[in-house]
Amino acid sequence: MKKIKVIVYGCGVMGRKMTEALLEKKSFELVGALDINPQLVGKDLGEFLASKKKLGIIIGNDPKALFSRVKAQAVIHTTTSGLKSVYPQISQCLKAGLNVISTCEELSYPWKRYPKLSRDLDQLAQKCGATVVGTGINPGYLMDTLPLVLTAPCLKVDTVKVTRMMNSARRRIPFQAKVGTGLTAKEFRKKIDDKIITGHVGLLESINMIAAGLGWTLNEAVEIPPKPVIAKKPVKTALGVVTPGKVIGLVSRAYAKKNGKKVITLEFCANAGVRKEYDEIIIEGHPRIHEKIRGGVHGDVGTVAVTLNTIPRAVEAPAGLKVMKDLPPAIATP
Amino acid sequence: MKKIKVIVYGCGVMGRKMTEALLEKKSFELVGALDINPQLVGKDLGEFLASKKKLGIIIGNDPKALFSRVKAQAVIHTTTSGLKSVYPQISQCLKAGLNVISTCEELSYPWKRYPKLSRDLDQLAQKCGATVVGTGINPGYLMDTLPLVLTAPCLKVDTVKVTRMMNSARRRIPFQAKVGTGLTAKEFRKKIDDKIITGHVGLLESINMIAAGLGWTLNEAVEIPPKPVIAKKPVKTALGVVTPGKVIGLVSRAYAKKNGKKVITLEFCANAGVRKEYDEIIIEGHPRIHEKIRGGVHGDVGTVAVTLNTIPRAVEAPAGLKVMKDLPPAIATP
Repeated sequence: MKKIKVIVYGCGVMGRKMTEALLEKKSFELVGALDINPQLVGKDLGEFLASKKKLGIIIGNDPKALFSRVKAQAVIHTTTSGLKSVYPQISQCLKAGLNVISTCEELSYPWKRYPKLSRDLDQLAQKCGATVVGTGINPGYLMDTLPLVLTAPCLKVDTVKVTRMMNSARRRIPFQAKVGTGLTAKEFRKKIDDKIITGHVGLLESINMIAAGLGWTLNEAVEIPPKPVIAKKPVKTALGVVTPGKVIGLVSRAYAKKNGKKVITLEFCANAGVRKEYDEIIIEGHPRIHEKIRGGVHGDVGTVAVTLNTIPRAVEAPAGLKVMKDLPPAIATP
Repeated sequence: MKKIKVIVYGCGVMGRKMTEALLEKKSFELVGALDINPQLVGKDLGEFLASKKKLGIIIGNDPKALFSRVKAQAVIHTTTSGLKSVYPQISQCLKAGLNVISTCEELSYPWKRYPKLSRDLDQLAQKCGATVVGTGINPGYLMDTLPLVLTAPCLKVDTVKVTRMMNSARRRIPFQAKVGTGLTAKEFRKKIDDKIITGHVGLLESINMIAAGLGWTLNEAVEIPPKPVIAKKPVKTALGVVTPGKVIGLVSRAYAKKNGKKVITLEFCANAGVRKEYDEIIIEGHPRIHEKIRGGVHGDVGTVAVTLNTIPRAVEAPAGLKVMKDLPPAIATP
């Protein structure tokens, strides 16, 4: 089995988790690492992993130099959520002929929000003979690709509804803070207004991927500002006990209409009050499909896995900007 | 939207259901029909549909003549389950440059059972610039493609278990007869020995597709002869009331081992005693995925939908023999 040589671009929390998982797999070989953080650059990436064991992979800050020095087939890109800010980074990878698998949320389905940028990226990728795709657990899989895969046995689809129900108290502390844990309702609203709490990023991308997959033209696609979930009794979290009346997390919602009728509904519930975690998809149509993953899929593990498992598909795919629905399915890699 | 021109090859029960569904979709245009049954040949395909309305599509028995007369992109092929018997039919389609989407069970993953024939078919398809793929609800989707899609968020997969639980009394009468409804246990066993009752066709194909997808080398893949399910109280079916002690359906099982350990288990339960229908997938690994489709997916509707929804993917794919896991996912077509 020939290993795919991979460069990790972004050595933050997700980049490190990607690295740890990648090192466990015989499908891949880590050959380089990039970041712009001066506290990371020049150090061995291994120092930042749980094992602390040196890897002989020094984090660089000069992509061009690395790409000319090291032979690779793919870049795992985990820097930021906005397409505009990652565009120059990704372009540079493509120009080196490298396939890019990125967790940039806006890249998961960029055609609606950034049609011109998407065309440019597609043309650049084709010119360079490389593939670029945005992915992750969500957007990228649970709320877009998987619902589309579940329409395969349908002769007709009327509506798609996806609900992720997760207990934020079982997640990373930064995530718990991100969903507003422990705030007053007033503080929460202020953070929403100041765009410090953004809710889940990528709901509109998922909606647009579903619509494109089903050949639907939408009149309207709306992301509702996240709503706080308030504790009714004391709730234990990693940020301390949240007293009744304070925030234990949030609900993010988005929907889309076609011919004036609500046809896509996405609901992302992340709060410490959730007892039973699940990811649910309901497709009303012929036949009706009611699917549920009990216990849900852990976000971080899922994002790392979906991203790594997409590498072989991106490497094999014809060149261009791809979205997950148009690649053969990512499958757990050995 | 440019319609894909389709020929229906096989005008039996499934071919007719395919036709009815195809006529409802704006993605496709029916341009021809083939069968060998003298009772069908020369007649308008429409006469055999529920509507009885003539379509102007006369069922022919000469593929070569039809292919030279009519321009098409794809053939929906629904004749028999064995690859050897459909090979000449499919070859002829490929030689005419037509993409073939077939419900032939053995074609869903032919590489293990017929490696030489698979290579030949792949080479022929490539030479002719056409794609051939075997599909359907099962094999083709519920017990192979969907479980593989569900491994995307997994860093590690230890075992895969798929269970289809269906109430045969809610299915077509020929299907109810096929699962042994109303027989004595002795009659059932004789029909098993005589290979009149075969259980579900395609379990080994599904196992082999899963193993190939996960990069697993199996020591052993075994299909267990179907076991009868015996009525404990009177059970109403379309074939009459089955009295206690008689057969109300069957259970088909298959499993596969890797390094001596059972790693894939498929169970297909079709009997009139099933109360809650479902299709369930359990992936033990990191993370564990426990997925369930409540109510299950109706076999006939599902097969028609998966097959039709695969047409655009087969038409777009690079030429060759494909299996479902290596095509972009089939999505409900408009």
